[in-house]
Amino acid sequence: MLMTTGFTLWFTGLSGAGKTTLATLVERELRARGRKVEVLDGDVVRTHLSKGLGFSREDRDTNIRRIGWVCEVLTRNDVVAIAAAISPFRAVRDEVRERIGRFVEVFVDVPLETAIARDVKGLYKKALAGEIPQFTGVSDPYEPPLDPEVTIRSAEERPEQSVARILAALEALGYLEPARARAAD
Amino acid sequence: MLMTTGFTLWFTGLSGAGKTTLATLVERELRARGRKVEVLDGDVVRTHLSKGLGFSREDRDTNIRRIGWVCEVLTRNDVVAIAAAISPFRAVRDEVRERIGRFVEVFVDVPLETAIARDVKGLYKKALAGEIPQFTGVSDPYEPPLDPEVTIRSAEERPEQSVARILAALEALGYLEPARARAAD
Repeated sequence: MLMTTGFTLWFTGLSGAGKTTLATLVERELRARGRKVEVLDGDVVRTHLSKGLGFSREDRDTNIRRIGWVCEVLTRNDVVAIAAAISPFRAVRDEVRERIGRFVEVFVDVPLETAIARDVKGLYKKALAGEIPQFTGVSDPYEPPLDPEVTIRSAEERPEQSVARILAALEALGYLEPARARAAD
Repeated sequence: MLMTTGFTLWFTGLSGAGKTTLATLVERELRARGRKVEVLDGDVVRTHLSKGLGFSREDRDTNIRRIGWVCEVLTRNDVVAIAAAISPFRAVRDEVRERIGRFVEVFVDVPLETAIARDVKGLYKKALAGEIPQFTGVSDPYEPPLDPEVTIRSAEERPEQSVARILAALEALGYLEPARARAAD
């Protein structure tokens, strides 16, 4: 039997930092270990929870509180909730952490220039051209976590290495049993 | 071990019909049988998911879709999601049913006069005085389900009887194992 299994893994960082990529890889690994997992990424959430909200500080905070509430409900029902949202403001992240309790924050730290160079969704180009107002990192602030459980410098290591470090942290924190005799993927 | 355990139990009916009362009683019984349960009642949801939404048809539908999405996520993670919301419009209830699949609709059918006479929250008085616009049953429509799994006439039986009928329906539908040798409460 598994131990009590729910917790929230919260990825925060700039657009293009690699949050969703990492979330998806961690999800796959946790499922392979028999855990129930839900990924709540920014796009899913904007569709199902927060349509109509904008990008003012208040609306962003409301968005994060909603994601946090769903994570809380999942966590107390033994599901691993993985949030992948920019979540730029420290205060509301800490509020969500407080409410949930079983909370692991992963700061996906990438230099702004790298995010701009990647620009997977073409959003930075538009933001820098002034076509998207209140774009985090360009025209809106990002407040990095002061004491995250894990920091990933996604410009300096491969996603597989980052995932291994996240899993090691989850094991060290007691949220995950160490994997034994795993087959290579 | 339990069988696959998630499903959504959806209470619909007028304000004051007794949805939350029944939801809470069913929740208690399901927990006693070892199930994970979350109750999403109208007030919880207005606080955590739908602050800012009004009572236009569009906003009501958005509210129901959000509740439905959370129920869907819980259901696929083996949690019993219990929704207790007026959910006056048939089309969006059926849309949610379709998405979730494992869905049991409980129509809490009460004569409007009874709901008005109870008026637990004092809302009907205000609605009848014209102080609350778009109040379901008074100044906004309620569309009863055409083919609900369970119909409860809450003016004609005690809540304990209603709960017993709901549990019997869940057993008959295969969502719940029959209780054996249960101690009296």
